[in-house]
Amino acid sequence: MQEQSGVKNITKANERGNLGFHKELKQGVEANHKIHINHLNPHYKLDLNVKARVKITPLGGLGEIGGNMMVIETLNQAIIIDVGMSFPSEDMYGVDILIPDFSYLHSIKDKIVGVLITHAHEDHIGAVPYLFKELQFPLYGTPLSLGMIGNKFDEHGLKKFKSFFKIVQKRQPIQIGEFIVEWIHITHSIIDASALAIQTKVGTIIHTGDFKIDHTPVDNIPTDLYRLAHYGEQGVMLLLSDSTNSYKTGITPSESSVGPVFENLFKNAKGRVIMSTFSSNIHRVYQAIQHALNHNRKVAVIGRSMEKNLDIARELGYIHLPSKTFIEAHEVEKHPDHEVFIVTTGSQGETMSALYRMATDEHRHISIKPSDLIIISAKAIPGNEASVSSILNLLMKKDAQVVHHAFDVHVSGHAAQEEQKLMLRLIKPKFFLPVHGEYNHVARHKETAMSCGIPEKNIYLMEDGDQVEVNPNFMRKTKSIKSGKSYVDNTNNTSIAEKIVQERQEIANAGLLSAVLFISKEGQDLMPASKLTSLGIVNMQEERAFLTELHGSLSLHIKALRQDILGNHKYLDENVRNFLRKALFKHTKKYPAIVSHVFVS
Amino acid sequence: MQEQSGVKNITKANERGNLGFHKELKQGVEANHKIHINHLNPHYKLDLNVKARVKITPLGGLGEIGGNMMVIETLNQAIIIDVGMSFPSEDMYGVDILIPDFSYLHSIKDKIVGVLITHAHEDHIGAVPYLFKELQFPLYGTPLSLGMIGNKFDEHGLKKFKSFFKIVQKRQPIQIGEFIVEWIHITHSIIDASALAIQTKVGTIIHTGDFKIDHTPVDNIPTDLYRLAHYGEQGVMLLLSDSTNSYKTGITPSESSVGPVFENLFKNAKGRVIMSTFSSNIHRVYQAIQHALNHNRKVAVIGRSMEKNLDIARELGYIHLPSKTFIEAHEVEKHPDHEVFIVTTGSQGETMSALYRMATDEHRHISIKPSDLIIISAKAIPGNEASVSSILNLLMKKDAQVVHHAFDVHVSGHAAQEEQKLMLRLIKPKFFLPVHGEYNHVARHKETAMSCGIPEKNIYLMEDGDQVEVNPNFMRKTKSIKSGKSYVDNTNNTSIAEKIVQERQEIANAGLLSAVLFISKEGQDLMPASKLTSLGIVNMQEERAFLTELHGSLSLHIKALRQDILGNHKYLDENVRNFLRKALFKHTKKYPAIVSHVFVS
Repeated sequence: MQEQSGVKNITKANERGNLGFHKELKQGVEANHKIHINHLNPHYKLDLNVKARVKITPLGGLGEIGGNMMVIETLNQAIIIDVGMSFPSEDMYGVDILIPDFSYLHSIKDKIVGVLITHAHEDHIGAVPYLFKELQFPLYGTPLSLGMIGNKFDEHGLKKFKSFFKIVQKRQPIQIGEFIVEWIHITHSIIDASALAIQTKVGTIIHTGDFKIDHTPVDNIPTDLYRLAHYGEQGVMLLLSDSTNSYKTGITPSESSVGPVFENLFKNAKGRVIMSTFSSNIHRVYQAIQHALNHNRKVAVIGRSMEKNLDIARELGYIHLPSKTFIEAHEVEKHPDHEVFIVTTGSQGETMSALYRMATDEHRHISIKPSDLIIISAKAIPGNEASVSSILNLLMKKDAQVVHHAFDVHVSGHAAQEEQKLMLRLIKPKFFLPVHGEYNHVARHKETAMSCGIPEKNIYLMEDGDQVEVNPNFMRKTKSIKSGKSYVDNTNNTSIAEKIVQERQEIANAGLLSAVLFISKEGQDLMPASKLTSLGIVNMQEERAFLTELHGSLSLHIKALRQDILGNHKYLDENVRNFLRKALFKHTKKYPAIVSHVFVS
Repeated sequence: MQEQSGVKNITKANERGNLGFHKELKQGVEANHKIHINHLNPHYKLDLNVKARVKITPLGGLGEIGGNMMVIETLNQAIIIDVGMSFPSEDMYGVDILIPDFSYLHSIKDKIVGVLITHAHEDHIGAVPYLFKELQFPLYGTPLSLGMIGNKFDEHGLKKFKSFFKIVQKRQPIQIGEFIVEWIHITHSIIDASALAIQTKVGTIIHTGDFKIDHTPVDNIPTDLYRLAHYGEQGVMLLLSDSTNSYKTGITPSESSVGPVFENLFKNAKGRVIMSTFSSNIHRVYQAIQHALNHNRKVAVIGRSMEKNLDIARELGYIHLPSKTFIEAHEVEKHPDHEVFIVTTGSQGETMSALYRMATDEHRHISIKPSDLIIISAKAIPGNEASVSSILNLLMKKDAQVVHHAFDVHVSGHAAQEEQKLMLRLIKPKFFLPVHGEYNHVARHKETAMSCGIPEKNIYLMEDGDQVEVNPNFMRKTKSIKSGKSYVDNTNNTSIAEKIVQERQEIANAGLLSAVLFISKEGQDLMPASKLTSLGIVNMQEERAFLTELHGSLSLHIKALRQDILGNHKYLDENVRNFLRKALFKHTKKYPAIVSHVFVS
């Protein structure tokens, strides 16, 4: 593929393992750190033909929290912004993750000129490997995003597709098909996150990605307000902005505000300090390690995703920590407790995580002890409240000291209302589509936008699958396309059909009856070999009586059957199932699943 | 039964329906409203024998939120405080509510002299009917508690047991076996809640029940600080205090603080106002109705539990509202929108609730419309976050205006830290057992207690089933007794064995294979009639290939079987199951349930 200004193709995708790949990513990081304030920005001559329009189609992230994915499409071409995963609800039995339904992409696949990644959180990149198994497109992103997606591709056996990766440079607008796209630096709870400025013939679109306005970020690279202002001043047709924290008033505290809290904890800690946070929040981990080093502690990084993310951030030069900082898990015991700092996974109470195993004495090297100070530097993601409370209980029962979000050791990565207002004022778009949130979140964001002067008629509240058309004169929903979620079983990375999950739900709620029935046509009765078995229906002590009664009434039913039914296998089968269904409902007030086999002789 | 001072037996349990019963309850309310400040309080001569002790055994409410139940026991006698229910976790398939395991009560049933109810919330009274089906004891409580339990008894066919009810009067210590117990008025999110002062020969115990210290309650009956101070000054051996909000700093706002917010909402509402809250929070409903009346609205109460609770509170004289205040659901349409106020259930997003049905156009009389103002005057109970967010989405999609806890229309009913401190300082107990909470909640309450001067060694953090012994000289855990939860299916009010739920979980996570196998001993092979059926294992399009392959490998396996296995039905059965288990794991990386029937001929 030919290279263009502002983009660096990956050429050494798997040269000497990942060495070549990572070297190219690292050069991207260095280039990105040389930000040119006065870079000139190519601008489109607008096509003011009233028929020209852009179609916006969210395939994920609206009507839900997570799983973000959006298509931006003109008459001839389309780009995809982010390809994220989300988590299933508790009643999706055996499902580990959810990925967006890609059907719509298949229908427009010849129009798609690229996938654009805003940042490397799972809800923005987690489904990329699943997309690439079906369809391949050039993949644009900053080095950290591409590095993390590269790791996923290794795991999914997609190494060869890394040649589709293209490293972008912030403040360098690039041509992707007929779109001119600029990655704009914004602050968030992950390194190297971006908003996107997308110029089309119809007008300019700004997509904020996930953001907060952090004036004192840990890496001292604040939100690029200048570029946002630049586009705002030139005129933006449409803003898509992050709604996650649309209920929060005021301003989200800076990532660096947790630093003094950490310092105070380290200063007073007598034994080991153990911290758990989201493994992608490199700056949080980096800050904590700095304070650990100030207090002469060695650092053990435990938990696979934590190790991998820290490795890649160091390797790409985002953070600098000498190797002598670190010790291995098995070396922890060799050091005095007050010289040890452990960084680990499990801040959401995941039962497979390192912290959980430490708390339950199932970890090979580390067990929690009363002298430990444990910092849970995270907040429960909605739905995880119970498991987070569980891990707190386990740790406290070990008599360890536990501090968590109630103690100011965590801040959010998403803009609160005053930051959302700043974004709205800077961009002053004609049209506004609040993104990233359930209906009530985007609805709240709409109110905020109206308070900043956007007229109500210029705002639309989308849900996944809505297709909205925009041009400088109007914005309107035109139709709905097929959207939804595919279920993925992580054990073997296979997808599970909805029907399978429905079958499991049915059985889970009411149990199952297996009926193997031998019917004598002549005697018109059940023969002794017939067997009824129940699973998850009645209590054990009642089971025998229950099945005997059922057997008895079934036998009477068969004796009374009409000959023509008895003679037709299909009718008989259906008749018996119906009888069993009614009899089960009478007894249990529910409809257990039925597996029946009827043999007539 | 003979009557004693301070207690009123129920004599007219079912006289003319519930008329006699409710009349007696109402007399109790009136007596309770005549509080005697200078009432003399009988005091025990303490038995300072070091061997005398009291055993405290929580059977619910510790290590969990909800399901509160506690046994207080001397050598010869025992009382039970509260008999609450709790909610199952999502993976307890088909289970509607959880009730405490009553095994321990059976083992000490001859010692039990009474069940004492602190207040009428479900997590304190919800399991009373289930207890009474197994064991009956005198049941002591304030009129509202007995009234609500009476309603439950009617539903459960336990009418006749209402003769066990005994109405207590606050500030009137009464003798229950060898215990002298006083119900002390405290404020909470329900009318007529109480703390208990329990005098034993060993020393005085104070159990706070659920409480907050509300100086401006809606009914103008504040917490009886005088009686708490009285006991504190005389000397309390042991305090058991509510830990639910142990993380909240400061003070929980007064129930009456939502009044001005309601007033403002009603003042500006142009269309109907619809409010949803916990049906037991009578004062919340009462406040809202007052503001509705100020603005000339009629009130429709919709939702069974809301109607029942409001009826009983009016009938017993806790609140006074003329009948002309109310209209029926079917009359709502006859009134102009700005003259209607609807009070309803569904603040937790329950799909069976009236509000949910209004939002989905499934309610017979009411559908949500854009001019409606909806007040969700509640907060999500932990675990209900997702369903609460769902109902907000549904209501907002109807373009209705929705205000919820983020808008100050809800306050908690539980003491925050400063109130917990006030309780600790007033009672100044020798020993402290924080109650009502998971381990991390009681652990936080312990820190608060230590900050108020209780020595660490005088505090113990209990979990359900712990048995703690106390006397004036020491407190220690002595043993653990059998505790846990029984599962209840509400469809038919029957209990479900743990094994049933486990079976359902197994199937839910991995699906099920049914195998009906006919094996020819001579041919040593599967016969054609054999059938394999899968449920919830593989996707439909793969199912046929999967089962054919399984059938093929099973056939090969059987061909290679040793004759002695083939000849022994038990061995053969086990052998086939093992083979299927392994084959299924190989294919699915999971262990689906197997129902197999093997017939050899």
